Amino acid sequence: MTSYTKQTMPYGRIKAETLFDKVTTAEQAAQLFEDGMVVGASGFTKAGDSKVVLDALAKWAEHEDMKITLMTGASLGHGTDGKLTRAGVLAKRMPFQVDRMLRQAINGGEVLFIDQHLSESAELLHNQCLPPVDIAVIEIALIEQDGSIVPTTSVGNSVTFAALAKKVILEINTKVPESIFGLHDIFQPENYPHRNVIPIVAPENRIGRRSIPLDINKIEAIVFTDIQDSPADISPPDEKTIAIAQHLLHFFEAEVKKGHLTDRLLPIQAGIGKVANAVLSGFQDSNFYDLRMFSEVLQDSTFDLLDSGKMSFASASSITVSAACYERVFNNLQKYKDRVVLRPQNISNTPGLIRRLGVIAINTAIEFDIYGNVNSTHIGGTNIMNGIGGSGDFARNAYLSIFVTKSASKNDTISHVLPMVSHVDHTEHDVDILVTDVGLADLRGLAPRERAPVIINNCVHPDYRKALQSYFDRACAQRGGHTPHILEEAFSWHIRHRETGSMK
Amino acid sequence: MTSYTKQTMPYGRIKAETLFDKVTTAEQAAQLFEDGMVVGASGFTKAGDSKVVLDALAKWAEHEDMKITLMTGASLGHGTDGKLTRAGVLAKRMPFQVDRMLRQAINGGEVLFIDQHLSESAELLHNQCLPPVDIAVIEIALIEQDGSIVPTTSVGNSVTFAALAKKVILEINTKVPESIFGLHDIFQPENYPHRNVIPIVAPENRIGRRSIPLDINKIEAIVFTDIQDSPADISPPDEKTIAIAQHLLHFFEAEVKKGHLTDRLLPIQAGIGKVANAVLSGFQDSNFYDLRMFSEVLQDSTFDLLDSGKMSFASASSITVSAACYERVFNNLQKYKDRVVLRPQNISNTPGLIRRLGVIAINTAIEFDIYGNVNSTHIGGTNIMNGIGGSGDFARNAYLSIFVTKSASKNDTISHVLPMVSHVDHTEHDVDILVTDVGLADLRGLAPRERAPVIINNCVHPDYRKALQSYFDRACAQRGGHTPHILEEAFSWHIRHRETGSMK
Repeated sequence: MTSYTKQTMPYGRIKAETLFDKVTTAEQAAQLFEDGMVVGASGFTKAGDSKVVLDALAKWAEHEDMKITLMTGASLGHGTDGKLTRAGVLAKRMPFQVDRMLRQAINGGEVLFIDQHLSESAELLHNQCLPPVDIAVIEIALIEQDGSIVPTTSVGNSVTFAALAKKVILEINTKVPESIFGLHDIFQPENYPHRNVIPIVAPENRIGRRSIPLDINKIEAIVFTDIQDSPADISPPDEKTIAIAQHLLHFFEAEVKKGHLTDRLLPIQAGIGKVANAVLSGFQDSNFYDLRMFSEVLQDSTFDLLDSGKMSFASASSITVSAACYERVFNNLQKYKDRVVLRPQNISNTPGLIRRLGVIAINTAIEFDIYGNVNSTHIGGTNIMNGIGGSGDFARNAYLSIFVTKSASKNDTISHVLPMVSHVDHTEHDVDILVTDVGLADLRGLAPRERAPVIINNCVHPDYRKALQSYFDRACAQRGGHTPHILEEAFSWHIRHRETGSMK
Repeated sequence: MTSYTKQTMPYGRIKAETLFDKVTTAEQAAQLFEDGMVVGASGFTKAGDSKVVLDALAKWAEHEDMKITLMTGASLGHGTDGKLTRAGVLAKRMPFQVDRMLRQAINGGEVLFIDQHLSESAELLHNQCLPPVDIAVIEIALIEQDGSIVPTTSVGNSVTFAALAKKVILEINTKVPESIFGLHDIFQPENYPHRNVIPIVAPENRIGRRSIPLDINKIEAIVFTDIQDSPADISPPDEKTIAIAQHLLHFFEAEVKKGHLTDRLLPIQAGIGKVANAVLSGFQDSNFYDLRMFSEVLQDSTFDLLDSGKMSFASASSITVSAACYERVFNNLQKYKDRVVLRPQNISNTPGLIRRLGVIAINTAIEFDIYGNVNSTHIGGTNIMNGIGGSGDFARNAYLSIFVTKSASKNDTISHVLPMVSHVDHTEHDVDILVTDVGLADLRGLAPRERAPVIINNCVHPDYRKALQSYFDRACAQRGGHTPHILEEAFSWHIRHRETGSMK
């Protein structure tokens, strides 16, 4: 990291010269935070997050008695959530996180967490269903003459924070080329009751402006940084992940054969992580072509598909890639600007667009049950893992709602298919296709009693198949019902695991 | 009921004279059904359902070995679902029902039921996620010269059935005045990937045509009837229902005082039933004015508000009212046509419009838990009651998502607030406000550990408050977590009720 002095600071990034005197250090900017404040910070799947101001806040707050509510787009990088947690500065956090230390504090009851659909945080703020934002911290590439700001690798909730926050701190990241200008499509719904349609009818539609409007008088501090986004983990897919991707690709091929889809498919959404990367990579050697994404995050695999010509366009709210891929993106921004767009997360994830475009949604489950209910967030019914993220935005409204998970893990002591999930994030009403390394269950048109055998036969690890079949048979025989369950036994697998370390 | 003879049949209702020779009896029309067929029938909250053809099918099928899949808009009237069940003709039923006998058959595993979001059935059919519709039975008021059809008191899924079914049977109901023409707004989204926006930006917008397009060659039979819709139950609200309505009205008044809403509120959706009727009736003597509905069903209370001038406009998919109110509506159609519109249920309930318009959604829960998860469908985790209906379409995307239920029932042996719901239809992510006769819990901006005390203090019947507080305290102490639960005990109240007849 460069240590900027007053002399070396790249003032060229600030086109509104009246703002020069707002330039300061992260440490000075951190003084703007006060106890009890609601802070809105940029950052979505670790991309475009604050690199130095929140870090400085954590350091400063270690010796202060202050607590804040922190809202972001989604997860932050650089262990920032952990640092803030360690400093004891977080009272409340929303709408998503992936930090080990923060997770521990949430589950310990020290930090309050609100797990929100990613499309909804901006709605809730606009609707005054959440307390007003006192101060925003937004990473940007540059400030335009009119004070409007150009974001970096994510848009997230920054448009909402810029509009609603009383004060704004800007972090200009010089590692991001100025030529990123034009990658973003900035559009916000009007306020009730005067809302108009969001006129997107294809992933490639641009409907807004290229910078985020900002009242220049709200800018309290401008800080420079040149720290890159935390890179995405691109460890190669394991055997089970490859199997999941293969099942899914075969399913798509079969749908094309049946005439349900064409080789172009429909716009794809893929949650972050290995499986999504593996599925997308699988398209590389397939017959599919002219693919499009309408997603929340773009990973390395998207840029591979764009480069090979398999994919024509990708729309999302952030770019979260490996260090090498960041280089590739930044060195070819001109090329990618015709093929990639970043939107606010209340546009990338908005239910109406997902239904209008007919998105194929692929998201990861922690566990699912024999009737198709999905748990995306909790371990053992109590402890949160990360959060629901955008999976609910997409699954409910998708053309196809697909959830993937390994059939078993931790030396197969945990089955990810269960009699009943210990926490429900996606109800049976919202789930079309379930995939594990064992196989794929197509639940479309099936009643609960029909789904159970399909799931048990197609998705369950062999070690657990007999026990799950036995549960279903006994539930039908002893209790019956539309959704046969033995409530006394529904969580017995989770309880056994807690007590013995294994579900077996 | 009039018994039509060939001479007395009101052929004037058929403007396309070439169709005269399709006129037949219900008994003859019933012969068109065959074993294994998928049948799409009109009808939504008992309104605009088939009166004689499905009835004739039930009679005929008693002596036949045939099974069908029956899709409707929502529930049917006149005990039709019960008659079909008794005749053993139902193999599968979707997306909603309210019939006692059918419910028993579903819970007994004799009829398979798919519980769908009401906005989604049409999507699933268009997307070929369900088997194709072989034959449609649609109640109408008249047939236009071009073969297009004018529905009666509901639109439901009839537009989709008319478009996709291979054959169509029409039931012309002469009890419904021809002047109902113009009440309906018929619009269907195009097919992927060419979908355009649904250009509704206010409840009163009309965007489509006044009759349902239909290929005249698909019409296999036309039957006359003059049987009215099953009337809605309008028994007066009880003490608890009135209390719920009062809590909710006070909440709205407080929101206006805070500047969150104006006295016009935002468009209201209210599920069917006593509580919804009581809430709407409560507006009559309030300061609210210029109210609008964007709902799925209109009840008596809506027409009272329209007549008193409190309400300006109401949009829905059906009209389900008392016998007296039917008279009122039918005698004043010209007046109401300016103030009421009926739409297909995939428009009235479509997620994008609900978010765009900022709907205030009021729906009934069977039970909810201390963290705000709602069960709308199941008793004791296994037996279905009615189905999720449109509650999910509205709750997920509403400006405010409100669920109401009595704090306790059956001599207070059942608490409707529980440690954990036995089935989840609406997750904690989708619920803003909970109301019982005891009081109202505003969950906005609260983490799970904050919600529990608010719900326990504000909504729980006094007999159960201590036990629920004890569960929460022990769950926090013994297990902790983001959502503290003791899985061994989570369903103990349901289990106790099954074993002893009381949750106490």
